[in-house]
Amino acid sequence: MTATPPPFTADDYKARMERAARSAADAGLAGVLVAPGPDMVWLTGYAPTAATERLTLLVLAPGQDPVLVVPTLEAPDAAAAAGAPALTLRDWTDGKDPYAVTAPLLGTSGRFGISDNAWAMHLIGLQKTLPDTSYASLTEALPMLRAVKDAAELERLAAAGEAADATYEEIKKVSFAGRRETDVAGDLADLLRQFGHSQVDFTVVGSGPNGANPHHEAGERVIEDGDMVVLDFGGLKYGYGSDTSRTVHVGEPTDEERRVHDIVREAQAAGCAAVRPGAACQDVDRAARAVITEFGYGQYFIHRTGHGIGVTTHEPPYMIEGEEQPLVPGMCFSVEPGIYLPGRFGVRIEDIVTVTEDGGRRLNSTSRDMAIVS
Amino acid sequence: MTATPPPFTADDYKARMERAARSAADAGLAGVLVAPGPDMVWLTGYAPTAATERLTLLVLAPGQDPVLVVPTLEAPDAAAAAGAPALTLRDWTDGKDPYAVTAPLLGTSGRFGISDNAWAMHLIGLQKTLPDTSYASLTEALPMLRAVKDAAELERLAAAGEAADATYEEIKKVSFAGRRETDVAGDLADLLRQFGHSQVDFTVVGSGPNGANPHHEAGERVIEDGDMVVLDFGGLKYGYGSDTSRTVHVGEPTDEERRVHDIVREAQAAGCAAVRPGAACQDVDRAARAVITEFGYGQYFIHRTGHGIGVTTHEPPYMIEGEEQPLVPGMCFSVEPGIYLPGRFGVRIEDIVTVTEDGGRRLNSTSRDMAIVS
Repeated sequence: MTATPPPFTADDYKARMERAARSAADAGLAGVLVAPGPDMVWLTGYAPTAATERLTLLVLAPGQDPVLVVPTLEAPDAAAAAGAPALTLRDWTDGKDPYAVTAPLLGTSGRFGISDNAWAMHLIGLQKTLPDTSYASLTEALPMLRAVKDAAELERLAAAGEAADATYEEIKKVSFAGRRETDVAGDLADLLRQFGHSQVDFTVVGSGPNGANPHHEAGERVIEDGDMVVLDFGGLKYGYGSDTSRTVHVGEPTDEERRVHDIVREAQAAGCAAVRPGAACQDVDRAARAVITEFGYGQYFIHRTGHGIGVTTHEPPYMIEGEEQPLVPGMCFSVEPGIYLPGRFGVRIEDIVTVTEDGGRRLNSTSRDMAIVS
Repeated sequence: MTATPPPFTADDYKARMERAARSAADAGLAGVLVAPGPDMVWLTGYAPTAATERLTLLVLAPGQDPVLVVPTLEAPDAAAAAGAPALTLRDWTDGKDPYAVTAPLLGTSGRFGISDNAWAMHLIGLQKTLPDTSYASLTEALPMLRAVKDAAELERLAAAGEAADATYEEIKKVSFAGRRETDVAGDLADLLRQFGHSQVDFTVVGSGPNGANPHHEAGERVIEDGDMVVLDFGGLKYGYGSDTSRTVHVGEPTDEERRVHDIVREAQAAGCAAVRPGAACQDVDRAARAVITEFGYGQYFIHRTGHGIGVTTHEPPYMIEGEEQPLVPGMCFSVEPGIYLPGRFGVRIEDIVTVTEDGGRRLNSTSRDMAIVS
C-alpha cells in the first residue's frame, strides 16, 4: 500500500478555481456556478453536511475573485474548508432572498455553466431574478473540467484501485454457497474499509438470475452452488474513487457460462486496448461492443461501456456511442462491458483505466479469468 | 413502543398521485414532474439507489395516468416499488435522448411544478427540448403537497418521536466529561438505531463554544466539566422522521447559562403555544422570537424557528417571517428556537409539533428543563 498522500492545499484549490474560470472564458461562458457536491469538493474542498433548499453556490467568473454564497448558519463550516483562504464568503440569513444576494455576482445577462446536480429550485430562482441569463449544465458546457487528473489525483486513484484489488483477492476466499448476497456484500464493504476506504459507494453481489440485472445491488437471495456471481464494488479512499467488477463462479461452470465469460473478458480487453490519446470516448465503447456483437450477444450488452471516475465513483466522460470527446492523458474511466441473460445470469468485468502518453494503463490488476469460489 | 405499522400499498400511492395531479390542476399547472428523492418516495415508494445524470422522472398530469420515465438499467428496480402497479414505466436506454422520451408526456407548452431537488441538468434538458414550457419548484408551486399528514403518517411520525425521546432519556446517563463530541454522537446514533431507526440523519453534539454554531455536527473536541452541550438528533423510523434537540449541562451551570436556557425554553413554549389551525407559519416564528428579543438576545437567534418533517427530516413548510401559509390540521414541523453566543455556548430546544383541530400536539415529551449530566 502506498503512503498517505499530503492533503490538497489552498493553493491547489486556487489553481483549480482559476483553471475553471479560464475554461469558462474559453468556452464563451460568463462564469461557472458550482453547487454542493463533487464539483464543489474538487474546487474548494468544501462539503456541506447536506445539500438543502438553502442556497450554497460558488461563483467563478473570469477576472473576478471566487465568491462562495453560503447560508450564515453554514458559514463557519465553509470557512473551515481547505480552499476557503482562496475565496470570499458572502453569507445570507434565513428570510433574505439568496438569489438577490447572488445576482450582482453574475451580471444581468450572460451564459453560465452550472453544476449538473444543482437543485432545479435554485436554477429557477436565478432564472427568475435574472431573466436574460442562460444556463448549460457543466457536463455539457465544460465536460473536461474535472476529467483530466494531475499526478496527485492519479496517485490517489491508483491507491483506491490497489485497495479494491486487495478486496477482490480476499473476497475470493470467503464462502459464497449458502450465504445471502447481502452477507457477501457486507464482507466487501468491510474489506474496502479495512484497505483504507473512507466511504463505500456500492457492493453489488448479483448471483444467478440477479446478475442479469446490471443495477441489482445485493438482496436476500441465498447463493447456490452453480451460480455465476457478478461482484462490482467501490468507494472513496483519500477522497478518490475505486470501481471494479469481476464475475466469479460457485463451483464448476457450464460450457455456456465459460463462453460468455470469455467473450466479456475479450471485449473488456478490446475496450482497454482502444484507449490512447486522440481516440474518442465512443471508440472505447465501439471496441468492446464489437466483440460482444460479433459473438451474437449484442442485444444483451444493455449499458454503455464506461464512465469517468475521480472525486466521485461515477462521473463524465462517458464511454458511449455518440461521445466524440477525444481522450487526453490523465483521464480516468471504467471499461466495463457485460452480458446479461434475463432470468439466467450476467457477466461483467471492469477496470479503471487512465490515459497515458501512448496508450492506457489499468489501475486494477487482479486476474480477469473466471475465479472459482466455494 | 408502538407496533410496526403496515406498509403503504399501491392504492395508497395511487391516491397520493391522484391528489398531486388534482392539486396541480387547482394551482393552474399542467402537471408535476417528480425527481428521485423524497417526493418520489412519498408518491411511489420508489427510491433509486442513487440520483444520477440518467433521467428518472415521474410525470403526473390531470387526466393522464402516471408515467415513470426510467433508465432501462433501473427499470427492474422501479417495477419492484410498492407504487409501481399504479403507474406505467417508460424506459430509455443509454444513448437515447431522455428529454425526447419525456417531451410527449408534457405537451409543448404549459407550466409544470418540478421537485426542488431535480437536477439542474435535467431541467435545462427539458427547457431546451420544450422551449415554451415553464417551471416552478414544487415548494413554490405546491407547498402543501406533502405537508398535511394523514393518520397513517402521523402514527409513523409519533413512533419516530417516541424513539428519539427514548434516545434522549438514555443519552443523559452516559459520560460526557472527558469524552469527545464524536463519542457521544456515536452513542446517539447507536441509540436511535436501537430504538428502531433505519436511518440516522444527524447527531449534533455542540459542546461549549461549538454549541454557538447551530450547524456544528460533532467534532474532536473533548467535552469538559462546565460545558453546555447542544444535542440535536434524528433520522427515519418506518420511513418517517424524528428531530429533537435538548441542551444539557456538564455539572453545575452558571447563572447566565441558566438564564439563557430559561429564555429559550420559554421561547420554545411560546412557539408551540402559537400552533393552531389558521395561524400562519410566520406566527410560530414570531411568537418564539418575541420572547428571545424581549430578553435582549434577538441578535443571537440566527435561524428560523422550524421546518416541516415527514418522509424527510427537513422539508417545507418553514416557520419563518414572511411565510404566510396557514397551518392546517395534520401539518408536522419542528419548533426549535435557540440562542448562540459566539465563542461561548449555545442553547437550542426542539420538539416536533403536529397541528390538531384546536391547537398543536407535541410528538416529543421529554422534559425541557436543563438536564445536568456528568
